[in-house]
Amino acid sequence: MIAADLKSLIRDVADFPRPGVVFKDTTPLLADPAALRAAIDLLAAQLRAQAGAVDLVIGAEARGFILGPALAASLRAGFVPARRPGKLPARVEGVEYSLEYGIDALQMHTDALEGGGRVVVHDDLLATGGTAAAIARLAEDLGAEVVAFSFLIELGFLGGRQRLGAPVHAVLNYES
Amino acid sequence: MIAADLKSLIRDVADFPRPGVVFKDTTPLLADPAALRAAIDLLAAQLRAQAGAVDLVIGAEARGFILGPALAASLRAGFVPARRPGKLPARVEGVEYSLEYGIDALQMHTDALEGGGRVVVHDDLLATGGTAAAIARLAEDLGAEVVAFSFLIELGFLGGRQRLGAPVHAVLNYES
Repeated sequence: MIAADLKSLIRDVADFPRPGVVFKDTTPLLADPAALRAAIDLLAAQLRAQAGAVDLVIGAEARGFILGPALAASLRAGFVPARRPGKLPARVEGVEYSLEYGIDALQMHTDALEGGGRVVVHDDLLATGGTAAAIARLAEDLGAEVVAFSFLIELGFLGGRQRLGAPVHAVLNYES
Repeated sequence: MIAADLKSLIRDVADFPRPGVVFKDTTPLLADPAALRAAIDLLAAQLRAQAGAVDLVIGAEARGFILGPALAASLRAGFVPARRPGKLPARVEGVEYSLEYGIDALQMHTDALEGGGRVVVHDDLLATGGTAAAIARLAEDLGAEVVAFSFLIELGFLGGRQRLGAPVHAVLNYES
């Protein structure tokens, strides 16, 4: 399976989560065994080719949890979750960031990136880049080096990659 | 790595999320590359040995998203998310279930299990079994056959497996 095959398994859902937004629904891709494996393999291949050694993959709650750990396992890296406030049990550090409507926040365990390391920030979709940029800021505050950003889907027309301070890799690109 | 090695990477956090509860924190295990791979391999090995062919793995938001898709990929199955209300974009069916304090709810896409199939319900931890039982009920309503339940951790002293109507597999068992 190549990227075009995977794209045929992304479902456009109109007016979700708000009127006027077309949501890229990845659930048909995830439910297809060959597509699920291909998505993991393609994410990993981009990083292996272009990011060098990776110690940890950070995934954003909740959809970044779906492929982030499988990507990490494929790269022989570990996985670190960036979670909604109140979800992580030990000592945390947080970051707030602006969304189109309002403020959102994520937290990571303070000791999650102890000893630094080369990390990749993963999420399912790159839109304006606010979430990924915030996670990268938090990861750097906690001592890591962000060597790449990795997404299943990039909405290129929103220009999110311009906000990100490390190379950006995406398996499926949309220009409109 | 065997189960005892993985257990040494589970961190007990006292009084989370409520006073008197000891939370099993899996984040040190997930962050360890060898342990992450071993956890996926051990989950998959149990199902390969004892569940026969599996078409889909259903994972519960949010922690069931972390190993569920990697488990699915290892089994050459697809992955279906069971999500909090309002998160899935297409037509959904939901289920409500009681927690120790109050009511919770999960939803799946109505077409997620079209054509039936043999499914495994996965979550990171089996406590009283309420969440897993609810997902199984929903999956059966949507036409699937639940052939097994799969957990990274089982708190055996809570007796959750007695509530579940298919074989239960867990990599790490705690009896107190």
